[in-house]
Amino acid sequence: MGKGRIEAFSDGVIAIIITIMVLELKAPEEATWQALQKIAPAFLSYLLSFIYVGIYWNNHHHLLHTVNHVSAGIMWSNLNLLFWLSLIPFATGWMGENHFEPFPVALYAVLLTICGISYTILQNVIQVCNKNDDKLKIIMQRQKWKGITSSVLYLSAMFMAYINTIISGCIFVIVAILWIIPDRKIERLFSNEQ
Amino acid sequence: MGKGRIEAFSDGVIAIIITIMVLELKAPEEATWQALQKIAPAFLSYLLSFIYVGIYWNNHHHLLHTVNHVSAGIMWSNLNLLFWLSLIPFATGWMGENHFEPFPVALYAVLLTICGISYTILQNVIQVCNKNDDKLKIIMQRQKWKGITSSVLYLSAMFMAYINTIISGCIFVIVAILWIIPDRKIERLFSNEQ
Amino acid sequence: MGKGRIEAFSDGVIAIIITIMVLELKAPEEATWQALQKIAPAFLSYLLSFIYVGIYWNNHHHLLHTVNHVSAGIMWSNLNLLFWLSLIPFATGWMGENHFEPFPVALYAVLLTICGISYTILQNVIQVCNKNDDKLKIIMQRQKWKGITSSVLYLSAMFMAYINTIISGCIFVIVAILWIIPDRKIERLFSNEQ
Amino acid sequence: MGKGRIEAFSDGVIAIIITIMVLELKAPEEATWQALQKIAPAFLSYLLSFIYVGIYWNNHHHLLHTVNHVSAGIMWSNLNLLFWLSLIPFATGWMGENHFEPFPVALYAVLLTICGISYTILQNVIQVCNKNDDKLKIIMQRQKWKGITSSVLYLSAMFMAYINTIISGCIFVIVAILWIIPDRKIERLFSNEQ
Repeated sequence: MGKGRIEAFSDGVIAIIITIMVLELKAPEEATWQALQKIAPAFLSYLLSFIYVGIYWNNHHHLLHTVNHVSAGIMWSNLNLLFWLSLIPFATGWMGENHFEPFPVALYAVLLTICGISYTILQNVIQVCNKNDDKLKIIMQRQKWKGITSSVLYLSAMFMAYINTIISGCIFVIVAILWIIPDRKIERLFSNEQ
Repeated sequence: MGKGRIEAFSDGVIAIIITIMVLELKAPEEATWQALQKIAPAFLSYLLSFIYVGIYWNNHHHLLHTVNHVSAGIMWSNLNLLFWLSLIPFATGWMGENHFEPFPVALYAVLLTICGISYTILQNVIQVCNKNDDKLKIIMQRQKWKGITSSVLYLSAMFMAYINTIISGCIFVIVAILWIIPDRKIERLFSNEQ
Repeated sequence: MGKGRIEAFSDGVIAIIITIMVLELKAPEEATWQALQKIAPAFLSYLLSFIYVGIYWNNHHHLLHTVNHVSAGIMWSNLNLLFWLSLIPFATGWMGENHFEPFPVALYAVLLTICGISYTILQNVIQVCNKNDDKLKIIMQRQKWKGITSSVLYLSAMFMAYINTIISGCIFVIVAILWIIPDRKIERLFSNEQ
Repeated sequence: MGKGRIEAFSDGVIAIIITIMVLELKAPEEATWQALQKIAPAFLSYLLSFIYVGIYWNNHHHLLHTVNHVSAGIMWSNLNLLFWLSLIPFATGWMGENHFEPFPVALYAVLLTICGISYTILQNVIQVCNKNDDKLKIIMQRQKWKGITSSVLYLSAMFMAYINTIISGCIFVIVAILWIIPDRKIERLFSNEQ
């Protein structure tokens, strides 16, 4: 009961988040190559955030797939995650408009850390409500290890922002790759069981 | 017939309402901590409204779950509720941008009262169309009592706004807590019956 | 095949149209009653358009309910209708910001006429693909009569805009009432047959 | 598994893309026919992009219909397509605001080329995962031929933009017609097989 609707609502919110970010890409007034170049940082931060939100949608999709019963705890942990994800367009826009200055980059790293923690909370709440599922346990273990690694990397990106924001940018890309690649392993697990 | 589509449409509208509110959080021009602090009121009002819209989505979800037949009356009471909910981003933005000045805070309280009344109307219309359902009656009784309490608290928040807006803010938080916590009881009712 | 997806897509687009209209309601800078009064025309035009889009959603819902087979013709007539509906936020914003000046009011009337014609085209295309359904025929007959009446009224509202925009406003309200009330008759037809 | 959700998410994103484009149509301040004429280029570019996104939705709908198993590859090729489609509102707004100046028109052509390539990538990834489906092969063959023709036409539109943007505009219209018409053939294939 309700699982379909929580999926539909989350999909709706994530679809809106991923799409309204593009509204931060304001069309320059002049129709020149130089004018377009000026929004390159905004474009890059949009691309990065699109990938991150895509990763969250992807993982969220696998995570909710394992849920049998939707409790109030799951509902609210899910809304908590969606709240922090909904701030990504703001942080992305600020980082892009300010051409990757240290403070917005550090804030972006902090936001990603909070999103990661919120995802972990949702995982734990789901785990408590759906105790004896082996498939779930394996996914959780894999994802928790990745979650901790990501948090450490985000925090280092936050500090690096005050030394060189390019290093922070590279760390963001590394974390994204970390999440994109091993998705396949979980997927294999699912397809093997079917 | 149509129940799935009214749920999908409501979910869509509520998902958009909850997400476009973040567009009111305009990225400051300067990349400093001071610039970020200036949008703290806008952030707080966004957080508050996100929770309120989340509560409405949650309750709406339980309420429509009990519907068997979608009449024109339910359709229009639902659209009436969605209309007032859709004004929350406006009221939130105005309250946040003006750093919680008395008049916008009072207007926010008035809007929440109207949303509450619209929800009660929807409840009554659903009750008339689905007469003999015991589960529904118990939920309605609980929610009506909470609805009246909320309305009284909103109205007091409205008057308090002219004395001290912090008191209004506290009242908003108390009403939110009031709605988040007892959701569990209704949920228990649902899970017991299954 | 595909019917569910065309419904879901249309619902999504209509839900976004009905909700982004509220973005035209810009929060005034000052926190006073006078500042709020200035956006009263914008609020009124938003309310009117919300009701109109709500009526379209409602009718669209009944119309697609009768479809058995989704052809390319239905797909494109549906997209044509969605295109004109998507211009309602623009026309609404322009009418509201200019405090119901003659030209924007006349344009609003023209847009509603085009939306009405697009809806009639969609009806006809659906009728051609689903020939021998009695229920559909009765709905079509009722709605076509209402469609013609509405078009005549919209055109008169267009001309009246240059005499007195209040008359145009009243005509818009009358058409809305015309569509809200007899919906119940069609609904009765559906519930009788079940 | 998951096919419904990838469809729902894609529909959501495409529905948002097609609708937020209208936000680029800013209501002019004056309530005159001259003010309205000034946004005619913005309207035209919106109309063109609406048709293009509609075509993508339509084809995407047929393409995903043939998928049996959703792999990580499909998920990410799909997100890649959605990313480039999400830039259409930006390119549309820029082209419209600058009254079809050469550079924005050329950029629009480049974006359409990239969208076309991303669609072809998604097609190929789906083909690899769903090997022995005849219906799929026929659709793919037809669409690939059209895809190559479109790319050649887009590239010529890009170069023509520096000679005469009206020619580019005509090419965009021709490609759109190319995609709208033969959809019926694929549809016939589907309806014959059922």
